[in-house]
Amino acid sequence: MSDRLSTTFAALADPTRRAILARLALGETSVSKLAAPFDMSLPAVSKHLKVLERAGLITRGRDAQMRPCKIEARALKEADDWLEEYRRLWEQRLDRLDDYLKTLQAGGAPGEKPKETKRGRKK
Amino acid sequence: MSDRLSTTFAALADPTRRAILARLALGETSVSKLAAPFDMSLPAVSKHLKVLERAGLITRGRDAQMRPCKIEARALKEADDWLEEYRRLWEQRLDRLDDYLKTLQAGGAPGEKPKETKRGRKK
Repeated sequence: MSDRLSTTFAALADPTRRAILARLALGETSVSKLAAPFDMSLPAVSKHLKVLERAGLITRGRDAQMRPCKIEARALKEADDWLEEYRRLWEQRLDRLDDYLKTLQAGGAPGEKPKETKRGRKK
Repeated sequence: MSDRLSTTFAALADPTRRAILARLALGETSVSKLAAPFDMSLPAVSKHLKVLERAGLITRGRDAQMRPCKIEARALKEADDWLEEYRRLWEQRLDRLDDYLKTLQAGGAPGEKPKETKRGRKK
């Protein structure tokens, strides 16, 4: 379970951590400012930050007082690349449904209903 | 931790489950056929399938003998939409780096170095 992609997905599997990333997408900030809207203790927020840091999704500044957090969006690219492969699948399915609806609107009587990919695309 | 997006990401946070989805992207198949390449017991594979099923990423056929598994790629769309927001961030950063490299090639002396110059053009 220690491969990088698994670590990334596990880090994203929490609404608070995703909210932290959404906040950091606006710019870097300190832990206390991050914690404010969450109504969570600083240690609880720090725990989430550690998970994000281990996944490479954020980095912390060196300043001992502030240690501002910064998002490293690039670390999401691997997850995005993984999903890319599957995007094809749901887009194809929507395209087929679209074609089918057009045939219906044109008054055609399609001989075959679009099946739900029984035919796996071979690579 | 029970929101849908968290459940999806948690289901993806395992290399075996991602490998199962990759296999199912080629077409539906039975549990025993799915299990074959993994060198795992059927109960272990079934456990992974339950996690995928709860996340809506697969469905199982009704046939009591076979119960073939089918990928529901559409369930990945919410995760993809979430990542979409962040794609912008890393693409912007690459664009800025690109601009900087062009300035260098043109013999310019930009006042500010862009941070993070690790441009992995791998893959």
